[in-house]
Amino acid sequence: MKKTALLLAMVCTISIRCSNPSSNNSGNLTDSSHAMVADPLPSWNEGPLKKAIIEYVKSTTDSGSQHFIPLVDRIATFDNDGTLWAEKPIVQVLYAMERVKKMAEANPALANKQPFKAILNGDKEFFAKGGEKALFEIIAATHTGMSEESFDSTVRDFFANFKYPKYNLSVKSMRYQPQLELLDYLRSHGFKSFMCTGGTIEFVRTISQDYYGIPPEQVIGTTFTYSFSDSTRQLSRKMPIALINDRQGKPVGIQVHIGKHPVFAAGNVGNEGDIQMLEFCQASKYPSFQLMVNHDDSTREFAYGEKSNASLNASEKNKWHVVSMKKDWKDIFAK
Amino acid sequence: MKKTALLLAMVCTISIRCSNPSSNNSGNLTDSSHAMVADPLPSWNEGPLKKAIIEYVKSTTDSGSQHFIPLVDRIATFDNDGTLWAEKPIVQVLYAMERVKKMAEANPALANKQPFKAILNGDKEFFAKGGEKALFEIIAATHTGMSEESFDSTVRDFFANFKYPKYNLSVKSMRYQPQLELLDYLRSHGFKSFMCTGGTIEFVRTISQDYYGIPPEQVIGTTFTYSFSDSTRQLSRKMPIALINDRQGKPVGIQVHIGKHPVFAAGNVGNEGDIQMLEFCQASKYPSFQLMVNHDDSTREFAYGEKSNASLNASEKNKWHVVSMKKDWKDIFAK
Repeated sequence: MKKTALLLAMVCTISIRCSNPSSNNSGNLTDSSHAMVADPLPSWNEGPLKKAIIEYVKSTTDSGSQHFIPLVDRIATFDNDGTLWAEKPIVQVLYAMERVKKMAEANPALANKQPFKAILNGDKEFFAKGGEKALFEIIAATHTGMSEESFDSTVRDFFANFKYPKYNLSVKSMRYQPQLELLDYLRSHGFKSFMCTGGTIEFVRTISQDYYGIPPEQVIGTTFTYSFSDSTRQLSRKMPIALINDRQGKPVGIQVHIGKHPVFAAGNVGNEGDIQMLEFCQASKYPSFQLMVNHDDSTREFAYGEKSNASLNASEKNKWHVVSMKKDWKDIFAK
Repeated sequence: MKKTALLLAMVCTISIRCSNPSSNNSGNLTDSSHAMVADPLPSWNEGPLKKAIIEYVKSTTDSGSQHFIPLVDRIATFDNDGTLWAEKPIVQVLYAMERVKKMAEANPALANKQPFKAILNGDKEFFAKGGEKALFEIIAATHTGMSEESFDSTVRDFFANFKYPKYNLSVKSMRYQPQLELLDYLRSHGFKSFMCTGGTIEFVRTISQDYYGIPPEQVIGTTFTYSFSDSTRQLSRKMPIALINDRQGKPVGIQVHIGKHPVFAAGNVGNEGDIQMLEFCQASKYPSFQLMVNHDDSTREFAYGEKSNASLNASEKNKWHVVSMKKDWKDIFAK
């Protein structure tokens, strides 16, 4: 397992914020409301992909079909960053940076200590040199050493007040409308929806029900080490990270939480993080569906790929369905 | 965390099988069918405990009550061994011993190697001396080093054919009828039921839906380490054990899988394994209910306690509800 994916994402995000705090693109959130009652996926443009999704759902939920999947085995897993909401920058990294600021406000001495100083001053060089060690220190400082209750309350505060860069909108506004429709469509046909994210599990659980209709107990994510105290009856979180739920870690997380192959899995091009989840899905004994979101819309969202092109290469090799955000999505952001 | 609980249980079970392969008690499975439609818990005798359960469920699910719990937070966790089915001996240990026999049949050379030899010959002394090391070898030999699919198939075969000692009945017959009714009753009032067992997670998942109406993704258990292979697209299981889901490990398992305090939790007196789960439940911000099953019925099941009396002491101190199997349960085993 490549354990540094989350950390590298953090470096990239810090670079983006430092080098590109604003953008030429003012955002283009649509507010169209032309959904037809008969169309379960109104924000998806007509075409082969939309047709394939609907055909898959119909054939696997029709008890007379040879492709029928029993209700209990209709498991759908969705990545979060870049698949359900925007990931430039990654929301959880924005949270960590906000925490650093607030911690330094409460304890000014921190502002002169690394790695706080580097974040507060946008010092890219420090992270380029300090590598994993510096990043682990930030994660440890902002995500561990407190009770679950304390962590939960800072995360809820963040989501209530934070504005996403470039768009200056709430994080909730950065969800992808077509994916919200897809989640609803799958659930209306008996699929149980799980989130399977590289983000840390409790962070995403605070909003999973409200943002996506996914209850906290159906979130799979990166997990810390915990200890339970009989005297306080509270759990404390600490390093090291027990599971990095990314790349090869995603099938492991799915095994621990669900114990079954998903039959529908959605990920995205960006950091090669979802290839193994889609492979694991495709190894199901049932007909399965793999969706890879490609960020190719620089006008409405962002355009980015992978140096290695690994996610698109795997999609082509394995005949996975690639979403062109530009062509396949009529609307991008939540309405 | 006391990491040896599962292992110690294995020693005890081997001792029981060796010293007491049969029993004077022929079993007394009832087949009464006098459940009244109006009574949700027909196998529970009338009394303060049954009344307390019904009052708790009514008050927490009545939206007009000050004790009301929102639907999404109605989380119930049940231990398995000794709480939902009999644990003398522990079913998973019986499985491990069966596997040792079958592995030795397939590869006779194993019969002369330890720890196989000791199990095949009922050599208590070996395990008393070999301690953890010998037991870890058995767990490693019988539970790891194969694909999930292979493990699954041997477990299904075991449950289909194995007869539980003393009663000579299927393992399914060893479920406790009052608990099956309690699970149904809670679910009919919107409680989401989870199993939280010291057993290994995939072992129990094979039967959780069929035996208890609990889907595999709502089972929390002891977990191994897994690795995913891109080439075979399979997960392999290996040592070390990543989480011993017992004692202090139970709140940790609940945190990882659910991320919330349960409001209803049931465990049993026997190996001190459920105290922390009940503490964690009682720390909920909602009204909560803790149930501790006491095995005090030597006639219909088994009578056993703890040298330390820790589970009963904690129950008294914390005002948890103790089930006397003798007095509170009209029937013991599944009908």
